[in-house]
Amino acid sequence: MEISSFDPPKRLLMGPGPSEIHPKVLSSLSKPTLGHLDPLFISMMDEVKFLLQYAFQTKNEFTIPISAPGSAGMEACFVNLVEQNDEVLVCSNGVFGERMAENVIRAGGKLIKLDFPWGTPVDPNIVFETLKKNPNIKILSFVHAETSTGVSSDAETLSKIAYDHDCLSIVDTVTSLGGIPLKVDDWKLDAVYSGSQKCLSCVPGLSPVSFSEKAVEKIKNRKSKIQSWFLDQSLVMSYWSGDKKRTYHHTAPVNSLYALHESLLHLYNETLEKSWSRHQKMHLKLKDGLEELSIKFVVEEKYRLPQLNTVWIPKDANDANIRKRLLEEFNLEIGGGLGEFAGKAWRIGLMGHTAYENNISFVLNALRSILQ
Amino acid sequence: MEISSFDPPKRLLMGPGPSEIHPKVLSSLSKPTLGHLDPLFISMMDEVKFLLQYAFQTKNEFTIPISAPGSAGMEACFVNLVEQNDEVLVCSNGVFGERMAENVIRAGGKLIKLDFPWGTPVDPNIVFETLKKNPNIKILSFVHAETSTGVSSDAETLSKIAYDHDCLSIVDTVTSLGGIPLKVDDWKLDAVYSGSQKCLSCVPGLSPVSFSEKAVEKIKNRKSKIQSWFLDQSLVMSYWSGDKKRTYHHTAPVNSLYALHESLLHLYNETLEKSWSRHQKMHLKLKDGLEELSIKFVVEEKYRLPQLNTVWIPKDANDANIRKRLLEEFNLEIGGGLGEFAGKAWRIGLMGHTAYENNISFVLNALRSILQ
Repeated sequence: MEISSFDPPKRLLMGPGPSEIHPKVLSSLSKPTLGHLDPLFISMMDEVKFLLQYAFQTKNEFTIPISAPGSAGMEACFVNLVEQNDEVLVCSNGVFGERMAENVIRAGGKLIKLDFPWGTPVDPNIVFETLKKNPNIKILSFVHAETSTGVSSDAETLSKIAYDHDCLSIVDTVTSLGGIPLKVDDWKLDAVYSGSQKCLSCVPGLSPVSFSEKAVEKIKNRKSKIQSWFLDQSLVMSYWSGDKKRTYHHTAPVNSLYALHESLLHLYNETLEKSWSRHQKMHLKLKDGLEELSIKFVVEEKYRLPQLNTVWIPKDANDANIRKRLLEEFNLEIGGGLGEFAGKAWRIGLMGHTAYENNISFVLNALRSILQ
Repeated sequence: MEISSFDPPKRLLMGPGPSEIHPKVLSSLSKPTLGHLDPLFISMMDEVKFLLQYAFQTKNEFTIPISAPGSAGMEACFVNLVEQNDEVLVCSNGVFGERMAENVIRAGGKLIKLDFPWGTPVDPNIVFETLKKNPNIKILSFVHAETSTGVSSDAETLSKIAYDHDCLSIVDTVTSLGGIPLKVDDWKLDAVYSGSQKCLSCVPGLSPVSFSEKAVEKIKNRKSKIQSWFLDQSLVMSYWSGDKKRTYHHTAPVNSLYALHESLLHLYNETLEKSWSRHQKMHLKLKDGLEELSIKFVVEEKYRLPQLNTVWIPKDANDANIRKRLLEEFNLEIGGGLGEFAGKAWRIGLMGHTAYENNISFVLNALRSILQ
């Protein structure tokens, strides 16, 4: 078999992630690799922690990137916080809510599930009633920004309900972090996980997580061992802890962490507030353009994620064919539908470094030229 | 807090991994990110599979890189193959054997453990006797190349014993892959896992694995769900399978996979045989130089790993201080001891792209100038 070095073309990434990556973030990946216990690398890890605390708006000491993609971050939250037969309420309104339910079962928890129609948010009233009726529920989990549908749920209200019912909250912030307001401490979220390749505009492969003091207490007081060794946060804590002596757990993905450091630094310098408002402004521009093309949004206006625009595929439009043409003729990627929405919806991402006007003009022109 | 872009110095990496990385591998990381379902990326994934099959010397269809470090690869093998109360024999002669035992317990298996002194290999006779006495043992697991001690165990003989006793074998090939002979098919190994940052000389963060048909059968016929969703290989298979329609499981670490592709291509072009003999030749050069400095090896000659040289720290030498000076004055990293060997041994790596003469001269000169 004849194989040569791989030379990917430059695509414009306007799907559900990976998103566009700043050239400085991309080039940071190729900086010389350091040993994972090198003091210089450890200083950089401390900065990554600080920058992640900023991004999550938290003082949580245990705020780190898991050395694996978002689905491992999700699993880290569940396997560390759920013990055998713990009752866990999962609110599902898309693919990632379903995945949470699957995690509860595999972690040995007792699953109680609330289903909300795809394209709609989690209803806090129903969650409130369910927690009231089920005083043994120990954890409430939901998705802040559903990547499969483009819906935002009210994380602030939902986590307050959890707090008032003495529940821990596990919140999927994969697509929300950096793109819409997310305030881990103010909103009293107990465990959150995210992904590097969405609004942080870093390469895929890392999952930032943050655990509140209450969550860390729960982990420390577990009666049973955490079923995963790799994701056992009580062990990972010793590697990422603030003191000078680091205990080896696994070899950190050194170069990917360079890129995360650089991308978090961009967010820190821009400030969260400006990033949130940029995403909102760009969303409105895209919306105007899509409406001109008579393309309709799946989600009611007030629940829409600015960074992930889910729209119905126009009648008579051939989904696969159009996305193939966008890719081949325009080097442009938009997302197809997932799960219930496969073949019915497109997902146009405006995440992080993608959320700029020139990209919006580009996708609108490309769609116009193909659809008309 | 004032934070700027991170600019690591160029260190010479002569520890237990990460190892030196070829400039072309490093620069491949910064190539434009593709979507993880992009047809061009999927073609590259097929090449990665082919190249990994070559590196492992296997025709196993299920040969892929896990999207996380070696310890996740280890866990993937155990959680997929071990079911509740399965008897698993773990041979431990170092840190990574201990970690295997921990994995068996957390996967719900019944652990039977054989301990061999640190710095010595697994004794096939004892393994044979143990399997004979315990006909219910379903899995034999051991480490081919113990990264904590620099010892090589006889994987061919051990897996033959497993095969003859109708056991599956799980073999840690983290440090062996690419550095010493490893023949997954000829030796009938059932599940192997490795790491990207050792003799493959890629960045850390990926774990190549390969499962035999027998292992895949066992996974398909499990009575219980695999406890990890992220590492559930029955799901991962659908993403990495050969047909055109890929089922989304998680977002692949796209750019890290570019680097793996490039590093595997280097190995393929060099050929395994030449890589193995280069490691052996360089080991002998290092050995001669160390003997001139009166530095003694921990491991008996015939069990030594050429790619990981474990030596006793000379009397009166200050471990921490010397390694600090090597790092600061020479930009040179060698490995400290791990576990039982902490403070007693050094680990000098000659892995992959590190195993060249100029690096050996450099480390010997540096040690000479500091020790004398």
